[in-house]
Amino acid sequence: MDTAVRKPVCPATQGFVKNAWYVVAFSHEVGSGGVLRRQCCEEDLALFRTKSGDTVALYDRCPHRGVPLSQGHVEGDALRCAYHGLEFGKDGRCLRIPTQPLIPDEMCVRSYPLVERSPFIWLWPGDAAKADPTLLPDHHRLGLGRDGWSAEPYFMLEIHSNYSMLFENLLDTSHISFLHGRAIDSGRMATADFRTEHDGSVMRLIRTLKGDMPNENNAKQYCLEMGVPFDRELTSEAQLPNLHVIRNQFTFPSRPKHAEHVRINVMPITPANSRLHYHFLTMTSSYEEEHPQSLKDAMETVLTQDKVVLEAIQGLYDRHGPDLPEVSVKADGAAMRARRVIAEMVEDERRAG
Amino acid sequence: MDTAVRKPVCPATQGFVKNAWYVVAFSHEVGSGGVLRRQCCEEDLALFRTKSGDTVALYDRCPHRGVPLSQGHVEGDALRCAYHGLEFGKDGRCLRIPTQPLIPDEMCVRSYPLVERSPFIWLWPGDAAKADPTLLPDHHRLGLGRDGWSAEPYFMLEIHSNYSMLFENLLDTSHISFLHGRAIDSGRMATADFRTEHDGSVMRLIRTLKGDMPNENNAKQYCLEMGVPFDRELTSEAQLPNLHVIRNQFTFPSRPKHAEHVRINVMPITPANSRLHYHFLTMTSSYEEEHPQSLKDAMETVLTQDKVVLEAIQGLYDRHGPDLPEVSVKADGAAMRARRVIAEMVEDERRAG
Amino acid sequence: MDTAVRKPVCPATQGFVKNAWYVVAFSHEVGSGGVLRRQCCEEDLALFRTKSGDTVALYDRCPHRGVPLSQGHVEGDALRCAYHGLEFGKDGRCLRIPTQPLIPDEMCVRSYPLVERSPFIWLWPGDAAKADPTLLPDHHRLGLGRDGWSAEPYFMLEIHSNYSMLFENLLDTSHISFLHGRAIDSGRMATADFRTEHDGSVMRLIRTLKGDMPNENNAKQYCLEMGVPFDRELTSEAQLPNLHVIRNQFTFPSRPKHAEHVRINVMPITPANSRLHYHFLTMTSSYEEEHPQSLKDAMETVLTQDKVVLEAIQGLYDRHGPDLPEVSVKADGAAMRARRVIAEMVEDERRAG
Repeated sequence: MDTAVRKPVCPATQGFVKNAWYVVAFSHEVGSGGVLRRQCCEEDLALFRTKSGDTVALYDRCPHRGVPLSQGHVEGDALRCAYHGLEFGKDGRCLRIPTQPLIPDEMCVRSYPLVERSPFIWLWPGDAAKADPTLLPDHHRLGLGRDGWSAEPYFMLEIHSNYSMLFENLLDTSHISFLHGRAIDSGRMATADFRTEHDGSVMRLIRTLKGDMPNENNAKQYCLEMGVPFDRELTSEAQLPNLHVIRNQFTFPSRPKHAEHVRINVMPITPANSRLHYHFLTMTSSYEEEHPQSLKDAMETVLTQDKVVLEAIQGLYDRHGPDLPEVSVKADGAAMRARRVIAEMVEDERRAG
Repeated sequence: MDTAVRKPVCPATQGFVKNAWYVVAFSHEVGSGGVLRRQCCEEDLALFRTKSGDTVALYDRCPHRGVPLSQGHVEGDALRCAYHGLEFGKDGRCLRIPTQPLIPDEMCVRSYPLVERSPFIWLWPGDAAKADPTLLPDHHRLGLGRDGWSAEPYFMLEIHSNYSMLFENLLDTSHISFLHGRAIDSGRMATADFRTEHDGSVMRLIRTLKGDMPNENNAKQYCLEMGVPFDRELTSEAQLPNLHVIRNQFTFPSRPKHAEHVRINVMPITPANSRLHYHFLTMTSSYEEEHPQSLKDAMETVLTQDKVVLEAIQGLYDRHGPDLPEVSVKADGAAMRARRVIAEMVEDERRAG
Repeated sequence: MDTAVRKPVCPATQGFVKNAWYVVAFSHEVGSGGVLRRQCCEEDLALFRTKSGDTVALYDRCPHRGVPLSQGHVEGDALRCAYHGLEFGKDGRCLRIPTQPLIPDEMCVRSYPLVERSPFIWLWPGDAAKADPTLLPDHHRLGLGRDGWSAEPYFMLEIHSNYSMLFENLLDTSHISFLHGRAIDSGRMATADFRTEHDGSVMRLIRTLKGDMPNENNAKQYCLEMGVPFDRELTSEAQLPNLHVIRNQFTFPSRPKHAEHVRINVMPITPANSRLHYHFLTMTSSYEEEHPQSLKDAMETVLTQDKVVLEAIQGLYDRHGPDLPEVSVKADGAAMRARRVIAEMVEDERRAG
């Protein structure tokens, strides 16, 4: 891809794959009593935790008079509608109509397959018969629940753009040196050697940087020692259509006994609808973070910078239509592949009906 | 209606009856000098009071260059446009063009039939030839201007939903026990016995509650004595298409000499347009209110709770279209009748041309 | 035009002439380092000043991934995109792609013809081959850069209406006596004698007022002496499609030696798009202003009053469509001519293709 190419599909109007698991919330967001309103692939959701501790996702509209159930309250193991007090259980069946004993069969609401695997709640917005928990990602590989590793579910950012643009952003790590200033690199990442790999719905861009030096920012964020040179391997891996993983590995050639550092950014990406997505972030590391608040602040800045550019790109497509031209460069290869694979996955699902 | 039924018409997209009287303001809102901007059945209105004390409603657009007359000023008995100083009298004719003596006949604006009957200003948005003051409601029956009764025009709430949804809300008094917590009942209203009555464009749902006890909230709001049991008859009456009346009658079997209490909520309902309506509220009572501020605060909370659910229902219809299903129960009977009657009244007016 | 007439074209939906110079910024707004975002005739612009001091306007979208270049930074003589660090020079050619040495020809962005003539930056949004600097207005005639004259670029107001409505507003100076109260006249301007002149795309309305007396407001704003009568000639001149000039000349018959006062409001008018325009204002005067802050405050009030009515008129057209009727009077003659001439200029340009 040395020469400029035109874009095959518009990144601002990609569809979504409904038969897949998506993170709709952190476990700690679904507390006792409250009801959380979210959206996933255009499905409106009311999320709550029963008294028994189960998390439940119901379609967010009471079948009686159409009030969002997310305006209601949890009563024991049921969700009670705010308007007339009808109660719905975890399977979506109505358990109580205050004004009459008879409960018509039609008085029920869709309930979605859910798997809670801390710190995430995964939901299947498509055909419930196809919801297969073995399709969930391997938590161990992500550094979650692993001895000697630390993990913290940092935050979720709402980004008002098509979700596919975030995968493209994360697969193109040259932007780190510009958009994010020197917050997470020394300014040399854009020109580092890189190679790409792909296997079906997984694609990787790997950048290697030899003999780099920490600056004040990334020393704090990756627990590096000022003055000690390091080699860094940054692997950015899209697991389409629902997860992105960035793995940073630091080694220190001048100090052979120094343990290698690994930090993994676990980033579930969830389309709320075609113009809004949720960007979840949990970080796991092979060491104890020394400056967790500083790290959190830096990542919030970094993700907000991404949000600003993605929303600006989306805004121009929304005003001018999907045919706006693009000129691509060699470093866009992995992102362009992700774009095509998403379009194919959506088309495959559409054809399968 | 023991079995579930589908809705015959969509409550979020009902039309309105233009040949009817609607409250567009409280008398005290139309003061000296200022001009009030309102809407009624999609007619933009500029409301003002002349120096002689008459209230006037003109179409809110200067025929010269199209500036809203509600941005102008009252000059004696005329309304002066803010832009070029043209003046219009109560019949809508232009009385002055500052730059020339000649006033073309076309320089006039529509004036609407108005009747001010304290505390309300009623307007007829339809065919002026049909504006018949005998169609106005009987104020005595509403407790207005009645010896020994107190009355206060409380407030107006703008609700961003179709107006028909408020009639349905008010005809279905089971929601009192849920949406309004225990602010205006003991929690028993939803399960109280009820009957319905109807006569043309009037329909009533009457709930009777025997031997109920006051709680801290409703004791204040209805001047009940703590510890003294009461019987309560709650009559919710829709007078389509423009007024809802709720009559509460309290009697005290254990204290035969105790006077009965009657409180009437007079609630003119005015469609501004198909997605916005005004909910006026005046309360009249057969006794002196002891806690008027507390009552006012409670009612504002109650009406705001209604506003929140109605706007949420409207929002889902706006996003998903009018075909969203509904499952009705027995207690919805009166509301469903109101829905059909409104649709018929609108259709009758449309056919009559 | 003594009788009422219907409008030939809708003032709220006029098109714009792209082959013309428009002021897009004051010189002082385009500083060192920052990038200014503006729009002109629907062209999105990123305006910046190079290290060498040149002002540049590029199309506000990076050809690589579509981020607005106005979110970027100035680097020497280039504009660097915020996202991946691509740099573009004043002719719009890409000068640097950080991840590769090869720069494809397609990696370029449109650059617009610009002329900076203090205090204004003029831009040509149409066909660059037709951008002729001799078409720029004569600054001397506007009082700019003239010995003994003072000049100050006051401010720019964004008005959310079609730009043609501002030309009509300014050509109809009778509104001064009403919309602007007595801020800039004694209240007699609306009834002053007037005549109109026109010559192609230039039209003038001239009002003459004999023996008027200053009031507290206009004494300050025009440096008049309280108690000294004056004659005033107010010439309002539209130079379609991009400039309006108001020339005020005061003479003092009772004091023959008193120098005449001339003040010129130089008001470039720039359509951002069909529903937003920029109203620039610079004032030049044949004397030293004594109360510059008071003058600035008064003009800001006056322009904001214009903004409010123009946006209200636009709002009603947007809601009700372009066919809303209008009834015109004799004083509207010049404005109606301007309306027709704008429509003809747009149509001529469209035909010329």
